[in-house]
Amino acid sequence: MTTPISLDTRDEFVARHIGPRDKDVREMLEAVGYDSLENLIESVVPDAIKGTSVLEQSIGQGEAQALSDLKAIASKNELFSTYIGQGYYPCFTPAPILRNLLENPAWYTAYTPYQPEISQGRLEALLNFQTLVSDLTGMDIANASLLDEATAAAEAMTFCQRLSKNKAPAFFASQHCHPQTLEVLRTRSEPLGIDVVVGDENELLEEGMDGYFGLLLQYPASTGGITDYRALITKAHELGTLVAVAADLLALTLLTPPGEFGADVVLGSAQRFGVPLGFGGPHAAFFATRDAFKRDMPGRLVGVSIDRHSRPALRLAMQTREQHIRREKATSNICTAQVLLANIASTYAVYHGPAGLKNIANRIHRLTTILAKGLEELGHHVEQHYFFDTLSVITARPSPEIVANAKNARINVRILDDQRVGVSIDETCTPESISALWAVFTAADQEVPNFDNMADLASARIPTQLIRESRFLTHEVFNRYHSETELMRYLRKLADKDLALDRTMIPLGSCTMKLNAASEMIPVTWPEFGSLHPFAPVEQTKGYQELTRELEAMLCAATGYDAVSLQPNAGSQGEYAGLLAIRAYHKSRGEAGRDVCLIPSSAHGTNPATAQMAGMRVVVVACDARGNVDVDDLLAKAEKHRTQLAALMITYPSTHGVFEKRIGEICDIVHKHGGQVYIDGANMNAMVGLCAPGQFGGDVSHLNLHKTFCIPHGGGGPGVGPIGVKSHLAPYLPGHGHMESKHGAVSAAPFGSASILPITWMYIRMMGGQGLKRASELAILSANYIARRLEEHYPVLYTGENGLVAHECILDVRPIKDSSGISVEDVAKRLIDFGFHAPTMSFPVAGTLMVEPTESESKEELDRFCDAMICIREEIRAVERGDLHQDDNPLKNAPHTAAELAGEWNHSYSREQAVFPTTSVQENKYWPPVGRVDNVYGDRNLSCACPPMSVYQDA
Amino acid sequence: MTTPISLDTRDEFVARHIGPRDKDVREMLEAVGYDSLENLIESVVPDAIKGTSVLEQSIGQGEAQALSDLKAIASKNELFSTYIGQGYYPCFTPAPILRNLLENPAWYTAYTPYQPEISQGRLEALLNFQTLVSDLTGMDIANASLLDEATAAAEAMTFCQRLSKNKAPAFFASQHCHPQTLEVLRTRSEPLGIDVVVGDENELLEEGMDGYFGLLLQYPASTGGITDYRALITKAHELGTLVAVAADLLALTLLTPPGEFGADVVLGSAQRFGVPLGFGGPHAAFFATRDAFKRDMPGRLVGVSIDRHSRPALRLAMQTREQHIRREKATSNICTAQVLLANIASTYAVYHGPAGLKNIANRIHRLTTILAKGLEELGHHVEQHYFFDTLSVITARPSPEIVANAKNARINVRILDDQRVGVSIDETCTPESISALWAVFTAADQEVPNFDNMADLASARIPTQLIRESRFLTHEVFNRYHSETELMRYLRKLADKDLALDRTMIPLGSCTMKLNAASEMIPVTWPEFGSLHPFAPVEQTKGYQELTRELEAMLCAATGYDAVSLQPNAGSQGEYAGLLAIRAYHKSRGEAGRDVCLIPSSAHGTNPATAQMAGMRVVVVACDARGNVDVDDLLAKAEKHRTQLAALMITYPSTHGVFEKRIGEICDIVHKHGGQVYIDGANMNAMVGLCAPGQFGGDVSHLNLHKTFCIPHGGGGPGVGPIGVKSHLAPYLPGHGHMESKHGAVSAAPFGSASILPITWMYIRMMGGQGLKRASELAILSANYIARRLEEHYPVLYTGENGLVAHECILDVRPIKDSSGISVEDVAKRLIDFGFHAPTMSFPVAGTLMVEPTESESKEELDRFCDAMICIREEIRAVERGDLHQDDNPLKNAPHTAAELAGEWNHSYSREQAVFPTTSVQENKYWPPVGRVDNVYGDRNLSCACPPMSVYQDA
Repeated sequence: MTTPISLDTRDEFVARHIGPRDKDVREMLEAVGYDSLENLIESVVPDAIKGTSVLEQSIGQGEAQALSDLKAIASKNELFSTYIGQGYYPCFTPAPILRNLLENPAWYTAYTPYQPEISQGRLEALLNFQTLVSDLTGMDIANASLLDEATAAAEAMTFCQRLSKNKAPAFFASQHCHPQTLEVLRTRSEPLGIDVVVGDENELLEEGMDGYFGLLLQYPASTGGITDYRALITKAHELGTLVAVAADLLALTLLTPPGEFGADVVLGSAQRFGVPLGFGGPHAAFFATRDAFKRDMPGRLVGVSIDRHSRPALRLAMQTREQHIRREKATSNICTAQVLLANIASTYAVYHGPAGLKNIANRIHRLTTILAKGLEELGHHVEQHYFFDTLSVITARPSPEIVANAKNARINVRILDDQRVGVSIDETCTPESISALWAVFTAADQEVPNFDNMADLASARIPTQLIRESRFLTHEVFNRYHSETELMRYLRKLADKDLALDRTMIPLGSCTMKLNAASEMIPVTWPEFGSLHPFAPVEQTKGYQELTRELEAMLCAATGYDAVSLQPNAGSQGEYAGLLAIRAYHKSRGEAGRDVCLIPSSAHGTNPATAQMAGMRVVVVACDARGNVDVDDLLAKAEKHRTQLAALMITYPSTHGVFEKRIGEICDIVHKHGGQVYIDGANMNAMVGLCAPGQFGGDVSHLNLHKTFCIPHGGGGPGVGPIGVKSHLAPYLPGHGHMESKHGAVSAAPFGSASILPITWMYIRMMGGQGLKRASELAILSANYIARRLEEHYPVLYTGENGLVAHECILDVRPIKDSSGISVEDVAKRLIDFGFHAPTMSFPVAGTLMVEPTESESKEELDRFCDAMICIREEIRAVERGDLHQDDNPLKNAPHTAAELAGEWNHSYSREQAVFPTTSVQENKYWPPVGRVDNVYGDRNLSCACPPMSVYQDA
Repeated sequence: MTTPISLDTRDEFVARHIGPRDKDVREMLEAVGYDSLENLIESVVPDAIKGTSVLEQSIGQGEAQALSDLKAIASKNELFSTYIGQGYYPCFTPAPILRNLLENPAWYTAYTPYQPEISQGRLEALLNFQTLVSDLTGMDIANASLLDEATAAAEAMTFCQRLSKNKAPAFFASQHCHPQTLEVLRTRSEPLGIDVVVGDENELLEEGMDGYFGLLLQYPASTGGITDYRALITKAHELGTLVAVAADLLALTLLTPPGEFGADVVLGSAQRFGVPLGFGGPHAAFFATRDAFKRDMPGRLVGVSIDRHSRPALRLAMQTREQHIRREKATSNICTAQVLLANIASTYAVYHGPAGLKNIANRIHRLTTILAKGLEELGHHVEQHYFFDTLSVITARPSPEIVANAKNARINVRILDDQRVGVSIDETCTPESISALWAVFTAADQEVPNFDNMADLASARIPTQLIRESRFLTHEVFNRYHSETELMRYLRKLADKDLALDRTMIPLGSCTMKLNAASEMIPVTWPEFGSLHPFAPVEQTKGYQELTRELEAMLCAATGYDAVSLQPNAGSQGEYAGLLAIRAYHKSRGEAGRDVCLIPSSAHGTNPATAQMAGMRVVVVACDARGNVDVDDLLAKAEKHRTQLAALMITYPSTHGVFEKRIGEICDIVHKHGGQVYIDGANMNAMVGLCAPGQFGGDVSHLNLHKTFCIPHGGGGPGVGPIGVKSHLAPYLPGHGHMESKHGAVSAAPFGSASILPITWMYIRMMGGQGLKRASELAILSANYIARRLEEHYPVLYTGENGLVAHECILDVRPIKDSSGISVEDVAKRLIDFGFHAPTMSFPVAGTLMVEPTESESKEELDRFCDAMICIREEIRAVERGDLHQDDNPLKNAPHTAAELAGEWNHSYSREQAVFPTTSVQENKYWPPVGRVDNVYGDRNLSCACPPMSVYQDA
């Protein structure tokens, strides 16, 4: 044998991640009209930014080796028994949920359920979440989750400000709230000019509260106590002041829910419903309110509607509100939820049922009462008479001594101050845990209390007037799936209703639905990453420190920035943190007056919403006919606002899927006028390894790790939105009370969604610089291949000067609408009959479809998609010709269900054409469980909790 | 709160495993006519055996605690770098295969594909396996896997004996075969009177070989060498002698395949195709032969046939041969395959493709040549000039010194003798591995060779005349799914074609398709269990030792036996080991003449087949009209054969699903006549905790861990069939060359399918004695509930004296056939339209359905099944009445595909009735990918490799 045999396996993952094989690449290049990938990229990337990438062209690392290296890092985390509480509690993720939901690509690779017909499974799980939250909180309506408890509290603050009759300028936050909640409130209130007053709510009744438009209380308190807030809330309401209550969802199985004593908003975290601690996230926060306020709810809301056959069907309610955030009028920049985690939490409740949850809560409370009794026996003083699961203990000896004992016993408690420690009990605790805790509090000359003796002495410590009387989770879904077999089948049934990446390409423009590799996902559920409390002593978190340090460096290399903060737990939060950094930078230079944020008219709605939240004024910059920034208009506006110019927010490559040639010039103009350039990293997937925003003019960018860097979309969250900054902005990155920093936090946890960061680490490590660059090149090639194959059927709306697009392309359906009456929605829904998820609809341009294939799709899949689009175009032509009826055709009636097929058929086209338009469809048919969903009906008849079973039976 | 709150969570798993809730149990008891479970069981279990259970009524253990305890045990296994080889090689299980196949209930909970219409996915994966094997071995046809290489060799031996023209009495086995293969050959040959001669095949040409009906060679040799067998095989064939070659599948990507130099059989293990070492199993063995012998192939064979629409469809070929093993004429007792593992191996090949596999093999070979060069440089002598991945090294210093060095470096090599060590290289090895190995062989005064220098000197060591020239794996399936996205979707597509426990009840009589809980499955893929070589030094395997010791004790407690052997890796192997123990026992007492095995006429075909293999003569005992053993006939036959009586094999409760009342008497008769009682444990699920075969008369039983003890069926394997024996038989349990024992092995690995034993350990630990007993009770209640609900529609064929069945019931369809022409097959296929897997068809009685619900099915699911059966009965009544056409009705045409629905409809019933016979079906419809499969066509046109794509396109 003379052919050299390579012993190097380091790059083996690259060909697993990237779809097209070498021969495919040759064919695709030929179709696009280039003889090499180099030449294509040379033509696509403008000269001004070419070669700005600072990414080292390193070789990747094999999957097994990368996993082994990451395991070594993970092993540096130390797992103590943890009783820190403060909003984060150890819990059990039931094994069938772990295996069949969290570790199952059918769930984690799904996209946000904007296309309800292919999302009924996860929409049902989310509806279960909303029902769970509204039942437990006693509120009328709950949303489909928010990012974390602290940002949910910040949303509650602005919600109260908008809706409160009391127009006072200040917001009162109880000192009994979790410290991280107070910190994020401070961060968020300052740019909005809201004065947050932190104090003891017990003094409010005396002191009066007419100076507050809203109050935030915590129930039970962060340190454990339970207070009856009825009088306080009655008084607040008399003053037109709204009251938000941050509550512990599990405690509400035993306590009178805030909805029953008048709360206007109830929020909190659903983490302890089966979601691993994960060093702070991701977890699902919840937000519930009264019926009167339902249309003002932040975040996403699943509603019950009907399909075209008048059968019940779920959908995102008031979707237009959310998907296209109203720019200048935006009240929140939230555009994601924590779907995967909300679904874990709701399924945890489905599995345990109301009796099971109450049983868990009772057990926790019982153990806590016994713990308290023993601590008192040992001479310590438990501060609260009433509590659920948390005690603050005034220790008989200095608390540092207790803490040292605890450390020796590999136990973490919460250090409140020199005389007090906090202890929180959770569902994983046993009588042995209590005895081990007592041992920590036992002096040398004392004996550890006897558990059974203490148990005999202990009694419940929930105030009689706050014992929950009302029933909850009475719906059948919470009372049906309590055996593992039943739960497993329920999860499979839901998963089967949905289309996710494990079955088809999801060609969503701007959303970069690429492979989420199994090797990237495996570490997420390692206990070494999953079981760490965000406020564990820093010496126990060395693994996470190493991981985040390395990941920051990796992301700096990929973007050309000097520093990265991993804290923002969604793209929107990254944008916000980025603008805050710009704001603080200007302020530090005595230019606090710089508050104008230039935003091109083509921008995603999140940009202006975020600018508003950061206290900036939005000034819109025009775009030209090709979708590029109108540089003259930019210059004029920069000059006009030269003394107030804070920033330009620009997406690159543009939201139109084009590498704008004049980006260098644009950045220069902004810099010359004293502004900072914020480059939205949503389209980073076209740039990694080819050019670097931090090198061609950007001062700050956020990165969507759930787009470019392989974190799965989870059915609509979690997202991760770290920001990269140039060195002059580095001092203004978000801080955290739990870290050394001058700046406030934007998320509850220091590292945001820490437990999913291993995904990106694995991706970058396995791809290496070479692989990452190749991914960008292939993403661009694939988009141009699709554009070329489809352009004669659907005009490609924008291209660069060489007629090339970047990593996505916009197909114009508007002329078709004119000629045939077939709308972009009809095309999107018809794609479902072919087994495809629709591309992005009507963004950034109404009446268009934006397609982003990513590098992970094989040429076969790209061709299958193009063939379907062409086949659809033929159907449209038949409508144009009159061969298909204008109203009764496969497009207008799409998607077609199996039930339709089995019944009477009164259409002018055949059943076969309806559901098997090509033979390849027949081989692997996806059946939508519902027909086209009626959006208007759903918004008009807003209903956001599980409907009674009779609705289904009657249908 | 005054209600006592239990802090005990130990039994929480019991209610997860068991389907019916307390209120359901009450309703089911009422339907059956009993007021308590105790009274029902009292009536079902005969007095003679009541109370014989010795299982302690302990409480179980919570899932998390059990996992934590097992993790502690697992951690006692030490994972050295292992180069032992000998048929077992470290390898990488590709992450998407690990996640989406091995850890996915859609794959592991599936049943054997006897119902092809709902099994097309796993049948395709198995067909890929057959194609992989036949391509790589160069043979015409391969089966769907066997249990392990050693038993495959034993099958080859008897295969040669049956088919060889040379009727000489001896079988030659090369001394270069793996030692465990030779050991199992010895075990298996002795009762059959075959003389196995072990020798050096290189001397055969000179010595002659007319004394052998067959030869077994190993290619490459166990110690590494590669020999050209062409001359030897030519000579053998001249003598009418058949030649079997045990081969390494991976080596065959580089070596001329045995099929090209005349081998009649090629066998071996596919373990290194992505299947974890797992301390020896389970792995898939393969067996391939020439076209002329295809109808004599042992084991299962997937064949290509057509469905009723003449479209290609897969099925088990020659199924009747296999499912109902021809009793007295049986040539093998194999009735399972290693489907899950075969599917991992075939998918590994699908993912890597021919070039990828060759690349892996080339890399391994290259590393091995470099290793050899360095060892020679260090003054050691490599015995073989030609090798693939394995060297035997004549060491310059005594080998124990080398082995001690290795141990210090946490490296395992194979100890051949005092002067030789073996080293095998695998796909996980890197240049660093080679350097580490050299270090072990380097004396104090030497330097470790330089890798690059040695690489320059090394060249390929495969003999020119044995370099593979032929192509392999040219079929599209091996050249299409090389990106992870494509592979993930392929696996999902296949899984979606099948019905497994994750979607529906599988009410198979005798097969006990109960929950395989996620917590039971999780430890299987822990590296601590997965990465251990079966011949690792015993001090590194302490975790497995503890696990197996504990499991043996658990199984003794559950069965009332005194000792257990975990070695048999299928029920059939357990039966065999049990009869061998009886045989050896008689022999030890000077009663070697005892060779008559009494077997009731109702027995499963495996029983007589096994008896034959154990050298016994089968004498059939009659059964009475109720399906019970005819005690008079038994007595007569026992008396007749009193001096030759070896054993009675009896299944209890009987294959008819009844607790025979006279079991005590039956055992007494056998014992009185000097025989031993073998109680087949297939129906152990009715007995655990209620009665104990080891206490009411059994001397030995095998247990199907894949039935009663939760090991999943894996789509048709792996199985595990340990045996329990009374103390007098304990000395005759299977041994292993790798253990201290006088008795030979029945499996290749000392603990058979060791890596799945944690499943049973977890189950028993989490259920506790109380939970296990409750499971038996509920299994009995559920069967009686079904019998009661269905008896007015389908007569229940056998019941005990109180009109009760045990844990399964037989529904008689024969009268229906007479009245309507509707057969048992029609009912079974019609169930598919309702989304159910059919019950067991025509076993033990032709024309009947045997239903075993197990304790894991909820009452809702039992009712759904009964409703479907009743609905089907109504359809049959419509046929009887003439309301439905006798030939064109939903039963005869079942199952109905979606393609049918979309096309022309020429039936006398509606589309809706065809596919949505009830509304509940509509909610969660399973669509069979093919119509009813034509069995006759498939057997007549036997085709057992992937068909060309054109077959599908033309269809």
